[in-house]
Amino acid sequence: MRPTPSLTRNITCVGAGVIGGGWVAHFLARGYDVTAWDPAPDAEQRLRRLVDAAWPALTQLGPAEGASRDRLTVAPTLEEACAQAHFVQESAPEKLDLKRDLLARIDAATPADVVVASSTSGYPMTDMQTEAANPGRLLVGHPFNPPYLIPLVEVVGGEKTDDDAVAWASEFYDVAGKSVITMDRELPGFIANRLQEALWREALHMVANGEATVKEIDDSITEGPGLRWAFMGPCLTFALAGGEGGMAHMLDHFGPSLKSPWTRLEAPELDRKLYDGMVQGCEEAADGRTIAELVAERDQGVIDVLRATGRLPRGRNGETA
Amino acid sequence: MRPTPSLTRNITCVGAGVIGGGWVAHFLARGYDVTAWDPAPDAEQRLRRLVDAAWPALTQLGPAEGASRDRLTVAPTLEEACAQAHFVQESAPEKLDLKRDLLARIDAATPADVVVASSTSGYPMTDMQTEAANPGRLLVGHPFNPPYLIPLVEVVGGEKTDDDAVAWASEFYDVAGKSVITMDRELPGFIANRLQEALWREALHMVANGEATVKEIDDSITEGPGLRWAFMGPCLTFALAGGEGGMAHMLDHFGPSLKSPWTRLEAPELDRKLYDGMVQGCEEAADGRTIAELVAERDQGVIDVLRATGRLPRGRNGETA
Repeated sequence: MRPTPSLTRNITCVGAGVIGGGWVAHFLARGYDVTAWDPAPDAEQRLRRLVDAAWPALTQLGPAEGASRDRLTVAPTLEEACAQAHFVQESAPEKLDLKRDLLARIDAATPADVVVASSTSGYPMTDMQTEAANPGRLLVGHPFNPPYLIPLVEVVGGEKTDDDAVAWASEFYDVAGKSVITMDRELPGFIANRLQEALWREALHMVANGEATVKEIDDSITEGPGLRWAFMGPCLTFALAGGEGGMAHMLDHFGPSLKSPWTRLEAPELDRKLYDGMVQGCEEAADGRTIAELVAERDQGVIDVLRATGRLPRGRNGETA
Repeated sequence: MRPTPSLTRNITCVGAGVIGGGWVAHFLARGYDVTAWDPAPDAEQRLRRLVDAAWPALTQLGPAEGASRDRLTVAPTLEEACAQAHFVQESAPEKLDLKRDLLARIDAATPADVVVASSTSGYPMTDMQTEAANPGRLLVGHPFNPPYLIPLVEVVGGEKTDDDAVAWASEFYDVAGKSVITMDRELPGFIANRLQEALWREALHMVANGEATVKEIDDSITEGPGLRWAFMGPCLTFALAGGEGGMAHMLDHFGPSLKSPWTRLEAPELDRKLYDGMVQGCEEAADGRTIAELVAERDQGVIDVLRATGRLPRGRNGETA
């Protein structure tokens, strides 16, 4: 039986590597009872080490009342791990056949109607739910590393997933302290991974061609656009590059640059529909805030992030004068 | 005559839009005398408004001794603006012919040997320095918006640029409080823009195809990978996805996913050279820090950024239990 999201207590985590173990740490910190299973012989030892390493951070954040590492049980078999589950999070290695079989086994071992989410980084659930007897409760709940600190979870079902399972999972993750994007269609890599994968592949090309070093790539982000993206996304950030004219002026000015070889990824045609979509989308995302207000917000955000990460600009108090 | 970087006082900013005006604000806050020129009829009014809007942020950061908005002069002509310059920063619109002509005019109007930098977002200096009588002192100094808060400047010369001009500019920007990446070759879009342009074009594709909204794209970054990129770059971040095995294990595990359609950008072949280059590059970037130390650093960084931007996870203190 599927409990209501707010009465869900027993979380089962299948797979206890970096992501599975990170989910375990998250759910423990939010006060849940967690049962984990992983076939590796040293899995329990590694898992407890991962949770111990995460705990100081989670303690700083303020764990939920009653949260305790003692609420973690490592089950000897997948079947025992799933027997009492109110929710299952699967985080097995990224191999399609393995995920297909494993999800079918989880489905067989888990009480009826209980929702089963996969942490897959990019497989559509439609491709993974093929072997399961009850595919309607299988869906993707894609986290970011580390799941105990990065809020985002992307939720999306496959062709055979029930809409109410997707709605349940979105509500459950929200109750469990995550920031949820519920997608209405399957898309390889979902949303955030498509964006970071594009950046990552361009980075790999640059290293492969000797155009930049790993350190230059990392520094170029942390000293540059990464400072903005921690609190303002790439679209609104770029809208502010358009000055008082916002995204419309930015596209007027930089639209032609979409034809430039500034990355190996070709841009879409900037037709009227896309232009209008970006301008309107930024207006919606701005939600009533003027460009001047967004600029002030961005400036304060950058200062707060610089300060929080110990990087106030050098050269103050006359050192440069 | 080219002053030493630390004795440079008079900065000329040509172009006073979002980027040029941002440079003006930066140099004023660092205590420099700034002369600006822009052909737009309302340029001075807009510039002073931009500087006024930036000033509260710059005051928070602690301006250099003697820093004052009164040190800004708006010159009536380009020639007058450049006549006393110790350094010139050009930030004209992103049009190649315009930049070519303007840089030639700046070169003609600026004292001998004084370095002239262009804020271009992506044109190689080789393509822009064609009309100038003294191309050796022309180079790219590419900032990020807003230049008064984002530390990064990418410095790179063109084919005709003197090496000592590049070295001078790198040292000057460092003295002026910027974080400098000096590139040894021209690359369209430099480094950071290639990375953010790949992400941006993937975002535009998604909007064009109705796969995601502007708000979902922005949220997916600020609630996801953007939180990490403010203080740890994409390469080291991904190395931590490999757990105790670091980048090598991450590439073993996710290497095959480079063939997946997770973005429209095709990945390079992950051959032995690239594999080794990434692993070795991450080791160099880690600079002696173990994976466990990097994990602890990342966790503290995420917490600090969440806290600084007012986003401690919800669901604490029993709300979820």
